[in-house]
Amino acid sequence: MIDVAEVCAWAREAGAIALRHFRTVQGQRKADNSIVTQADLEIEQMLRERIQQRYPHHAIIGEEQGGDVTGHEYIWALDPVDGTNAFAFGLPTWGISIGILRNSQPFLGVIYIPVSDDMYWNEAAAQAYWNGQPIRVSAATDYDGQDWITVSSYAHLDYDITFRGKTRSTGSTVAHCCYVAQGSSVGALLGQVHLWDVAAAMPIVEAAGGHIITLDNDPLDLGTLLDGRLAPRPLLVVTPALHKTIIGSIREKGQ
Amino acid sequence: MIDVAEVCAWAREAGAIALRHFRTVQGQRKADNSIVTQADLEIEQMLRERIQQRYPHHAIIGEEQGGDVTGHEYIWALDPVDGTNAFAFGLPTWGISIGILRNSQPFLGVIYIPVSDDMYWNEAAAQAYWNGQPIRVSAATDYDGQDWITVSSYAHLDYDITFRGKTRSTGSTVAHCCYVAQGSSVGALLGQVHLWDVAAAMPIVEAAGGHIITLDNDPLDLGTLLDGRLAPRPLLVVTPALHKTIIGSIREKGQ
Repeated sequence: MIDVAEVCAWAREAGAIALRHFRTVQGQRKADNSIVTQADLEIEQMLRERIQQRYPHHAIIGEEQGGDVTGHEYIWALDPVDGTNAFAFGLPTWGISIGILRNSQPFLGVIYIPVSDDMYWNEAAAQAYWNGQPIRVSAATDYDGQDWITVSSYAHLDYDITFRGKTRSTGSTVAHCCYVAQGSSVGALLGQVHLWDVAAAMPIVEAAGGHIITLDNDPLDLGTLLDGRLAPRPLLVVTPALHKTIIGSIREKGQ
Repeated sequence: MIDVAEVCAWAREAGAIALRHFRTVQGQRKADNSIVTQADLEIEQMLRERIQQRYPHHAIIGEEQGGDVTGHEYIWALDPVDGTNAFAFGLPTWGISIGILRNSQPFLGVIYIPVSDDMYWNEAAAQAYWNGQPIRVSAATDYDGQDWITVSSYAHLDYDITFRGKTRSTGSTVAHCCYVAQGSSVGALLGQVHLWDVAAAMPIVEAAGGHIITLDNDPLDLGTLLDGRLAPRPLLVVTPALHKTIIGSIREKGQ
């Protein structure tokens, strides 16, 4: 079995590395025009070493180094710094994301937001935690102007959103997922993401009673993203009670 | 003269009060349907006492208690917790805002973001600071997909935004102003706000080389907001170099 407390300790160690670089590094442009920092590379390397030493038969796929993971029962999917743009610009919301799939299904997630010292994880499918407290998605069946969803950074270009509450966007996909899991936001429009963006968030969200689905209301099969491809459709995090409402308030532009 | 270091110390004291309440209080709905917390009331009371003791002839206007400030040379405008909704929901971006007007003009601002321990202030019109370092707005004359502006929480309902970079929205108007002042974001769409939302941010932004203007490209006269009214037009924070570009990429819906 996997020792989740030890994985949380690794996430804290990763957070300490990131905080040493935070606001001292200048981001450099990656080939894909996003910003990567030295922290990203150092953290992925550290986590790979810890995982390989402790679980030598597990496979690892990471944002920075990729990885061939076919045929493994346990696959670790790492996003060393989710929200590198926010990190590079000095904003507080970015996080370490460590997800584990078992037989290509979401199994265990650990997400750590260093600046606010917020740790999220799940134990099996039954329970998710935020700083040691059990969490549950909102059970509200309606919402008002003080309720909110999070949206992706290019949502203003890509979607028409008629949600009557507030929208927020912080730069971190994993933080957006956790806000739904902890019952604060009533949904999250993630846009199109990679395996490592949701591999930790999905088991946490599901253990908190929520779902990650496509904008077409189809279930998300994490196994289809194992080759590192971008999810072919935009993804949403929803609560069961407002599932249809949230889907109905987001439309792709030009469709 | 006003001792800005002492005002920063008051802001830190206010932050400590807020952090004691953070994530332990349940927000309650105000008459205007926004969420106010006990922290808000405690902080405004504390700040009023400090100001009245040290500067007994100055006037004070605050979000919680209002205030009649006509005819005073120095007017303090307080937003004890800017971003109360974010605060109530456990998000990291909210701040203490202490602005001082002299002869109805922006004079001095102190903004403190407790969770990330970020302090912003200005000294006269010449220089703004972030955690002790001088800051300056971006001088970039163009932007790409990795650049960003911040927008207000209802921007998805109120505006058509064609900015080709990212948009972010954290829940705190004063933080959004500071991101422009520190050179991280290239603009901020604030929406319609009150005096206390911009009284501290405006002198900081201006001392960093930026401007707060209306969406119609008119200057903002803080003096017109002294009675506590909502600014009649949406406000923008802009850099001189991208001023026209940002204005041109935001249009009110239905206009």
